[in-house]
Amino acid sequence: MTEHTRSDTLLAEVIRGGRVESRHYGAAVVMDASGKTVFATGDVETPLYPRSTVKALLALPLLTEGAADKYALPQEALALACASHQGEPEHVAVATDMLARTGRDLGALECGTHWPLDTRASRALAATGEQANALHNCCSGKHAGFVCLSCATGQDPANYILPEHPIMQTMARTLADVTGVAHNDANRGTDGCAIPTWAIPLTALALGYARFATGTGLGAERALAAERLRAAMSAAPFIIAGTDQFDTLIMQDLAPRVLTKMGAEGVMIAVLPEKGLGIAIKCRDGGVRAAETAAAALIARFGGEDSPVLNHFMRRPLKNWNGLVVGELRAARELAGDRLPDAAS
Amino acid sequence: MTEHTRSDTLLAEVIRGGRVESRHYGAAVVMDASGKTVFATGDVETPLYPRSTVKALLALPLLTEGAADKYALPQEALALACASHQGEPEHVAVATDMLARTGRDLGALECGTHWPLDTRASRALAATGEQANALHNCCSGKHAGFVCLSCATGQDPANYILPEHPIMQTMARTLADVTGVAHNDANRGTDGCAIPTWAIPLTALALGYARFATGTGLGAERALAAERLRAAMSAAPFIIAGTDQFDTLIMQDLAPRVLTKMGAEGVMIAVLPEKGLGIAIKCRDGGVRAAETAAAALIARFGGEDSPVLNHFMRRPLKNWNGLVVGELRAARELAGDRLPDAAS
Repeated sequence: MTEHTRSDTLLAEVIRGGRVESRHYGAAVVMDASGKTVFATGDVETPLYPRSTVKALLALPLLTEGAADKYALPQEALALACASHQGEPEHVAVATDMLARTGRDLGALECGTHWPLDTRASRALAATGEQANALHNCCSGKHAGFVCLSCATGQDPANYILPEHPIMQTMARTLADVTGVAHNDANRGTDGCAIPTWAIPLTALALGYARFATGTGLGAERALAAERLRAAMSAAPFIIAGTDQFDTLIMQDLAPRVLTKMGAEGVMIAVLPEKGLGIAIKCRDGGVRAAETAAAALIARFGGEDSPVLNHFMRRPLKNWNGLVVGELRAARELAGDRLPDAAS
Repeated sequence: MTEHTRSDTLLAEVIRGGRVESRHYGAAVVMDASGKTVFATGDVETPLYPRSTVKALLALPLLTEGAADKYALPQEALALACASHQGEPEHVAVATDMLARTGRDLGALECGTHWPLDTRASRALAATGEQANALHNCCSGKHAGFVCLSCATGQDPANYILPEHPIMQTMARTLADVTGVAHNDANRGTDGCAIPTWAIPLTALALGYARFATGTGLGAERALAAERLRAAMSAAPFIIAGTDQFDTLIMQDLAPRVLTKMGAEGVMIAVLPEKGLGIAIKCRDGGVRAAETAAAALIARFGGEDSPVLNHFMRRPLKNWNGLVVGELRAARELAGDRLPDAAS
């Protein structure tokens, strides 16, 4: 056993046949924009990679640097810049349009190629005889945003993924300002889509999103940019993720009062603008399902929200291939408190 | 924190940018056929669902009850009965053939339908305009085996998935005999493919496979059946799983000295016939990747095996979508001992 886990807490359990089958541990923190910790459990201080949870913060310069206005980017484009999408036709169309507004095409993207994560979209693409390209990459919207930002500010976008490129320097400065933690070579790793990801405490991630939720502590320009991004995410939940995805289902039901963003390896953030709160979660084993379950519990509890979608994700039925319920994925009571539903829904 | 996790041990870590990104905890045990524990770490006593790791044990009655001989099942059919396959054309062909030998077709399967788990096979199927069917279900071989067993023993296969059907009663008795633990309503859950899965201690699972490895304690008929199944698995590693899968890669390299079988929710077994050992692993959070990593470490250490494939799975490189290495999935030193390679491979 290590310190890391000894201090972590139960986030979610898989129940099958009335028995615990699997358990997920991790950490979670709820903060307000003044830096006050409203709730914390587990190790919330050891720096960790926020992965795609910071995408909405990385999109701030699109607005503060004038790229969104120069290219008249619609709300869907701003949402796609914040997205980890499933490569469905709607996502590809928006990314294509973003690049076209700069006079570029998918050749400008440096995120790499993979088939659509949505299996139906992937099969549909295969049925046409076409191949996947960089537009289908789940991060293509963020990358199209980097291309827009490069072109709008007179930079050559080539190699925009490298830490020394002016675009990534802008990202590091923005994240450092918003989260209050240094972003430099000492805490830099590389994300799956080839750009840097900087390790920060979960508390700093939650604080950054409490500021994003409210504008407090961001300065006037970034506060306005955050407001526009919140509106864009709220207007286009499908663009943020896609069919059957947690972020999409939650925001279709609860935005603009609740915004969420998943990240790889079990990181999750939630934004509660009316409550002035930011939430950050890490499932220590990288399990996305548990991060979703924990997020639903904390949104219900600290957002004062009550919805069938949240209840579903707090106690998600597990079905066999014949469609019969054989168990559930259940939020830990330490997170959900008295908001845990009585039965899976 | 609960007893369950306090007593678990580190199995594997994800490293990115020189930093621990995620950690998997769980339990592992190595036993010989006399019931002696050679190695144990974590909670190896609390009963848990072995899921698909018991498939080779569930295939024993195919041989002891005469179905394999009656239908002249080839080694590939016996291997498919033990398989969690990826729904590739080779797997579908063998399942189809098994059913045809009984005069049945896919209509006899009660496992439910899903698209091939191998994404290339899934796209290729979609490109033909066809739909997935029950033959593509990862458990179709096991289910085809149940149909063969039903027909060979003069039972109507209808509802063979139900606990009260004679076929499932045979499965419960077989598992109870081989593992030494009662299999009844009190420890029964339902697996993803609709048949029962009975919760047993990890020690019982390892003991069952030590007996399967050696024949010791099985009686003459089951010992011979185990020998034939070991030969079938060794002869057809691709049939057991499929393209790029752990079980296939390990057995292509190391069978018949090493056999492995994954199960859902992070359970894994390994069989070391020459050493007379059975290995059972549970990653507590259900992470298959960590169960694979832990299995590679214990096979290297207790099997005395040294191979590039094992080294790869002990320190598996993580690549971004551009193909560059950005981290690794590394076995815990407590498991691997001095067999942990110096660098990812």
